[in-house]
Amino acid sequence: MKVSRRSLVPPFAVMEILAAANERRALGRDVLNLCAGEPSTGASDVVRERAIELLRAGDLGYTEAMGVPALRAEIAEHYRRWYDVEVDPARIAVTTGSSGGFVLAFLAAFEVGDRVALARPGYPAYKNILAALGCEVVELDCGPETRYQPTVSQLMEAYYEGGLDGLIVASPANPTGTMIAPGELDAIARWCAEHDVRLISDEIYHGITYGDDVQTATAAMYSEQGAVVVSSFSKYWAMTGWRLGWLVLPEELVAPVGALAGNVALSPPALAQHAGVAAFTTEGYAAAAANVERYATSRAALLERADELGWRPVAPADGAFYLYGNIAASGLDSIAYCARLLEEADVAITPGTDFDGVHGHEWVRLSFAAAPDVVARAADRIVAWQAQL
Amino acid sequence: MKVSRRSLVPPFAVMEILAAANERRALGRDVLNLCAGEPSTGASDVVRERAIELLRAGDLGYTEAMGVPALRAEIAEHYRRWYDVEVDPARIAVTTGSSGGFVLAFLAAFEVGDRVALARPGYPAYKNILAALGCEVVELDCGPETRYQPTVSQLMEAYYEGGLDGLIVASPANPTGTMIAPGELDAIARWCAEHDVRLISDEIYHGITYGDDVQTATAAMYSEQGAVVVSSFSKYWAMTGWRLGWLVLPEELVAPVGALAGNVALSPPALAQHAGVAAFTTEGYAAAAANVERYATSRAALLERADELGWRPVAPADGAFYLYGNIAASGLDSIAYCARLLEEADVAITPGTDFDGVHGHEWVRLSFAAAPDVVARAADRIVAWQAQL
Repeated sequence: MKVSRRSLVPPFAVMEILAAANERRALGRDVLNLCAGEPSTGASDVVRERAIELLRAGDLGYTEAMGVPALRAEIAEHYRRWYDVEVDPARIAVTTGSSGGFVLAFLAAFEVGDRVALARPGYPAYKNILAALGCEVVELDCGPETRYQPTVSQLMEAYYEGGLDGLIVASPANPTGTMIAPGELDAIARWCAEHDVRLISDEIYHGITYGDDVQTATAAMYSEQGAVVVSSFSKYWAMTGWRLGWLVLPEELVAPVGALAGNVALSPPALAQHAGVAAFTTEGYAAAAANVERYATSRAALLERADELGWRPVAPADGAFYLYGNIAASGLDSIAYCARLLEEADVAITPGTDFDGVHGHEWVRLSFAAAPDVVARAADRIVAWQAQL
Repeated sequence: MKVSRRSLVPPFAVMEILAAANERRALGRDVLNLCAGEPSTGASDVVRERAIELLRAGDLGYTEAMGVPALRAEIAEHYRRWYDVEVDPARIAVTTGSSGGFVLAFLAAFEVGDRVALARPGYPAYKNILAALGCEVVELDCGPETRYQPTVSQLMEAYYEGGLDGLIVASPANPTGTMIAPGELDAIARWCAEHDVRLISDEIYHGITYGDDVQTATAAMYSEQGAVVVSSFSKYWAMTGWRLGWLVLPEELVAPVGALAGNVALSPPALAQHAGVAAFTTEGYAAAAANVERYATSRAALLERADELGWRPVAPADGAFYLYGNIAASGLDSIAYCARLLEEADVAITPGTDFDGVHGHEWVRLSFAAAPDVVARAADRIVAWQAQL
C-alpha cells in the first residue's frame, strides 16, 4: 500500500556508525562513542528526588496542553534571571522536548508551501520536520567567514529570489558550536520583523558556553516582533530522555499553539513537568554548571590538540559540546573516515554529511559531552590513528 | 505577523465548562467533574515502583526512536496473549502517547491533499491533526442504526465521490463507547485493502469492555494488508500523563515511521518506556482489570437509570468509559444543557458539539472513569435537576 512521499526522510549516516559501534562493543571491544548529542550524566539529584516523591504521591494525569502553571512560571523567572528579559508566563508553552516544540511552532507559523531558510551545516531534523509538514526548505550555505551562521545579506538574497516566510537560527549551533553575536541577532530579528519573516531561534544549548566574554542573546527579546524561541531541558539540565522543552511565543501564536498542542500532543509528560520545576533550584543550576565545567575541560584539551588531530579548520566551539572539524587533509570522505576510525581505532564520531549535504563529506563532528577521560582517550586514539593514515 | 490557517483549530466547548467548573470549585462548591477522558486512578503500584528504581539508578537518556527493545517485545507478547495474533516486535513503534502515534502514522501514510474518512461523532483530534497535516477530512455520518460506526457502503460512497486514501476507525469509540463487530471489521479491512485505502484503527480503549460476550477484534490481524493499529497505555493501564503509546505497523511503514520518529519526536519518554514494561506483569494487568471492574459498576448503575436521566437514546456503551446520550427531550441545546447543569447542579459533562458538528447539539458525553461514588452522586443530581427543568 502507498507510503507518503513526505516520509521519505534521508537516513542518518551516523546510524550505520552506531550499529557498527554496538556490534564491536558486543564483541568485547573498548569502543569510545562520541557520536551522541547528549550529556553522559543524567538529570540532577534534586530533579530525580522530586520525581520519586511525585511517583509516591501518585497523581500523574494529563496536564494543561500548554504545561503546568508552576513550570511556566519558573521558565518565565529563568528569563528574568539569565537574560533580564520579562516574559509573561502566558506566552510560554511547555513542550515534549524541543522536538515537540518545533512541530508546534512550525505548524502554527507556516503553511504548506511556505519557504523557510536555515543554515547549512545544521541540525538535520529542522529540514526533515519542515519537509514532512509540507514546507519548502531554503538552505543558506554558511562557512567560516560568518562563523557558519546566516547573515542578513543571505536572507535578502533568499527573499528576493522566491520570497521567504521563516528563518531558523541556532546559537550555539549544532554541529558547529558557533554563536550569533548579539548585534548580529539584533540585525537578523529586525530584518525578519520588517519583512514578515517568522524568526525561530533554537536556544537549546544556552548555558553551555565557554569563555568569560560570551554574550548569549535570546530571541525572547524580539518576541513582541514575532520571534519564537525553542528551548529544552535536555542539554543544559541533562534531561534528554525526559522529553521536556518549551517555546517562548509572540502573542499572536499563543492561542494557535495552545489549540494545536491539545490535539497534536494532548500534554507534555506530567512527571517531567512537575519534577522539572526543581531544575530551577540552586541545586538544579549547580548540577548543570558542574556539567558545563566538565565539557569545558574536554573542550580545552581538544582545542589544544587541534593541530595534532589534523582537523583544519575546526569551527569555533563557542558553545554546545561539539567539535566540528575539516578532515579533507586526510584524503578520505567523512563517511569513510568515520567508518575506518571506528574499525581501526574504536572511536565513533559522526560524519558531516548528516549536517551538510554539500560540504559534509569534508567534515566530522565529535561530541565532547562524554566523560573527560573518555574524550581524552579518544583524542589520543585519533591522533595515533591519523599519524599512520 | 502571519499565523498559519492550519492552526485555526476550533476550540473545544468543554474548555469553557472546565474553566467554569474550576471557578466554582475555587468558590468552595462541590463540583463533580465527569468531563475528563481519563481514569481517576493513576498508574499501578508495580509501574510506579519500577519507575522509582529507575530514577534511583539514574540513566534516562534518549532511547531508540522506535522505543526500547524490551518494551516492543512485551507489546508483541501482549498481542499473542490477548488476541492470539503474532506480531513481529520489529513492526511495533513505541510512541509519545497515542497522540504521537497518530501524527507519525498520518505523516507516513498520507500526503498533503489526501482524503481520509472518519466517523461523526468521533474524537475531534483525528480531524484536527489531519487538517494540520494538510489532509482533507471526509466525515461519515454514523447513527444508531450502525452503532455509530462506519460501514462499507458509506466507504464506497465516499470512495466514488472523490476518491479515498484513508479511514480511521475506533472501537471502542469515543464518545459513544460502541464497538465494531469482528465480522464488520473484517469486511472494512478487506474493502480497504482492495481499494488501497489505509485503515488506521484506534484501539486505545481495548481491555475496557463490558459483558461476557464481547469480542474485541484487533486490526493487527490485517497488518499484512496495510492496516495500522494505534494504541496506548493511557486508558487501560491508567497512565495518561506518562505519554506512552504504540503503533502496530505494516511492513512498508516501518522504515518511514522510524525515520520520521527520529526527526519529529527523537524518542518517546525514557522513564515511561522502561517502567511501562511492568504494565505487562501479572500485577500490572490485575490493577488494570480492577479499574475496569469499577467502571463496570458505574456503567451498570448509569444504564439502570437511563430512563430516569431522560437521555434517549443513549449509545450502547460496549466499552470505554463514556455514556453518550441524546438530550433533545430537554428542549436545550447541549452547550446550554451542560452550562446549566454545571451552574444549577454542579455537575460537569461534555457537550456533544465537541464530537459532532452536525448533531452534537442534541448530545452530551458523561465520563464514568471517575470513582463510582462520584458517578452515582452525579447521576442523582442530574435526575433531580432534570425533574425540575
